[in-house]
Amino acid sequence: MSGTNYATAAIRSLTHVAVNQPLIHHITNVVVTNDVANLTLGYGASPVMAYAPEEVAEMAAVAGALCLNIGTLSAGEIEAMLLAGRAAAAARVPIVLDPVGAGATRFRTESALRLLHELPIAVLRGNRGEIGALVGSGKVRGVDAVGGEDPRKVAEAAAARFGLVTAVTGPVDFVVGGGRTLAIHNGHPLLGRITGSGCMATAAIGIMLTADRDIALQTALGLATYGLAAERAAAGEPGPGTFRARLLDEVAALRHTGTAGVRIEVERGP
Amino acid sequence: MSGTNYATAAIRSLTHVAVNQPLIHHITNVVVTNDVANLTLGYGASPVMAYAPEEVAEMAAVAGALCLNIGTLSAGEIEAMLLAGRAAAAARVPIVLDPVGAGATRFRTESALRLLHELPIAVLRGNRGEIGALVGSGKVRGVDAVGGEDPRKVAEAAAARFGLVTAVTGPVDFVVGGGRTLAIHNGHPLLGRITGSGCMATAAIGIMLTADRDIALQTALGLATYGLAAERAAAGEPGPGTFRARLLDEVAALRHTGTAGVRIEVERGP
Amino acid sequence: MSGTNYATAAIRSLTHVAVNQPLIHHITNVVVTNDVANLTLGYGASPVMAYAPEEVAEMAAVAGALCLNIGTLSAGEIEAMLLAGRAAAAARVPIVLDPVGAGATRFRTESALRLLHELPIAVLRGNRGEIGALVGSGKVRGVDAVGGEDPRKVAEAAAARFGLVTAVTGPVDFVVGGGRTLAIHNGHPLLGRITGSGCMATAAIGIMLTADRDIALQTALGLATYGLAAERAAAGEPGPGTFRARLLDEVAALRHTGTAGVRIEVERGP
Repeated sequence: MSGTNYATAAIRSLTHVAVNQPLIHHITNVVVTNDVANLTLGYGASPVMAYAPEEVAEMAAVAGALCLNIGTLSAGEIEAMLLAGRAAAAARVPIVLDPVGAGATRFRTESALRLLHELPIAVLRGNRGEIGALVGSGKVRGVDAVGGEDPRKVAEAAAARFGLVTAVTGPVDFVVGGGRTLAIHNGHPLLGRITGSGCMATAAIGIMLTADRDIALQTALGLATYGLAAERAAAGEPGPGTFRARLLDEVAALRHTGTAGVRIEVERGP
Repeated sequence: MSGTNYATAAIRSLTHVAVNQPLIHHITNVVVTNDVANLTLGYGASPVMAYAPEEVAEMAAVAGALCLNIGTLSAGEIEAMLLAGRAAAAARVPIVLDPVGAGATRFRTESALRLLHELPIAVLRGNRGEIGALVGSGKVRGVDAVGGEDPRKVAEAAAARFGLVTAVTGPVDFVVGGGRTLAIHNGHPLLGRITGSGCMATAAIGIMLTADRDIALQTALGLATYGLAAERAAAGEPGPGTFRARLLDEVAALRHTGTAGVRIEVERGP
Repeated sequence: MSGTNYATAAIRSLTHVAVNQPLIHHITNVVVTNDVANLTLGYGASPVMAYAPEEVAEMAAVAGALCLNIGTLSAGEIEAMLLAGRAAAAARVPIVLDPVGAGATRFRTESALRLLHELPIAVLRGNRGEIGALVGSGKVRGVDAVGGEDPRKVAEAAAARFGLVTAVTGPVDFVVGGGRTLAIHNGHPLLGRITGSGCMATAAIGIMLTADRDIALQTALGLATYGLAAERAAAGEPGPGTFRARLLDEVAALRHTGTAGVRIEVERGP
């Protein structure tokens, strides 16, 4: 696909989301829940946060996508994620997993691996350290990656190990799966200065999965459109507080400002 | 009451709140808790979020109003709401209920009905779908209303069924109770582009209930002042991220910018 | 130390934080968690929120500081705080406690006292009412101080009673401990118009504790730099929503805009 074609695919997916307003069921952490809900609305989708074991299966079954994020996990929340995930799987609702802080504590690593083994996750997204921890490499301190692994290799290892599309995000994002490796060159360093920027990227992926069945492509389009909005929000180098508000403005404006700036490169595959 | 009189009543209530700084006890969802606390401060009231069964009764008993919101409910939280609600009732503290997502899952519908049956709720506020679900009509997907019910009729049905003031919010808000139907023509479509706009409307009602005993009128004044602030925040059609920050600015400025723009119409009653 | 020397100490600590990016483990309330994470990033440190008993000890042991905040406490969360606190103590990680709403309910007062008695807290920070409640004076309504105690005396009483550095914040902040009383004259009334301003002050203290061992001085530097950022964010008297975004901008800019404005006075001691 050429750059123009990716831009066209992006706008087509954005329009599909805005027209169909898919319900996105997030089970996410308490730090970013407001930002993730607002991002989902910005894309034109309909967010719902539902965590109770009494209701998660019912909610996930009617969603367009289920986004699981272990950023402030608890034992009970992992059980709710499993309930929601099984219902999503039965209803063919795609599931995205964000293993926040995997590698930082055993509880996070083991919980992420349990979700990966028990649920048919469609997309796994994390930073180099988190995804690396799940395949036995990678270093994490708190929720941030440290160390010098090649993010492309980390993504390839996880995609092969777990048999799913993996996105490793960083200065360049790599999406690996279905015989392809895509590199996304959108984004801005200011994303690293606000909390939840990774969690929002995960949400963007879940939202875009509702628009087409090509999981690797939709993952790349989610990251590219989100990164493009970040580039625009960063114009004039605002402080992180102002950037955070503008990021939401720019996500909501994407259908009008256009997607000509998405920069996706095929590194391997069709 | 004429338009001028509503504006006068609004400014009087806003002043009453700012002078008395009533404590508003919120048991609300994790998505909007920061926005709701900041809105409460914007009105000049004093927010407190307290959820633990060990303390909710003690906190609710000394509050000016208790706002219950089931947006991210759990079984334990519903029990805490019942404890808080009974203490509020015993101390004659008015209770407002926001049945977020009622109709979307059985757990939400049943929990909202349980709160309505076991507590002397003063005001019930939701969208057309949520309130409709509680009276056996209405359609909800996630936390958003779908379907074509007349919101006025939905409000009337709920007010009659549960014997309380009901506010059904949407493009026009309807407040029904005490033999009256009031229509509030304030607000802006941008409210639908940010998360928690309904939850903040519920908080505005709880805050205004502390200023006067006319529950239906204070409910209308809460919605009208909040909607008026939204209109001002929407000037120049900002993106939703910027709008969200300005909304709080405009709520906090209401006592100075004035309430001449409140548009409340009596559709039925005195 | 002269004013120039405090400014120099402040910039040295800010640089230390930015270079070392210490991990700050927050166990905080759901209202402010996003703001606290963003503030931590603004200072150049690395925030992590971890609450599960399965992981808090592991996370706290590798942190640069542990910040405990009981703003939306639960019985389970207090147990997690004790687990985290013991691990922090064993690893010589300094602990800061924010007893939000102590005095407002017995559960809050008793939980704060339990944490103070069972953990080697380095710094206790609260408003006059909260700290007063812990030493038997003080009045709190919700989470706000009421009444007329001298904040200096309240800080001195708590520092003596619990044998730690105490910060009582308000129009002027007082830091007492190690034979010293410091008065910090930075800050702005707009801080009182946004939720979480006290919680963020506590986080600023925890962050600055990672840069030097002089606990009283680092506490004062945390409050002074945070207050200085607030003064700059308040330029032009924005509304609270805009102020909240700008506060984060100004915190993140401190290393570049400088610390010449920090105003710390020694009232007692070296």
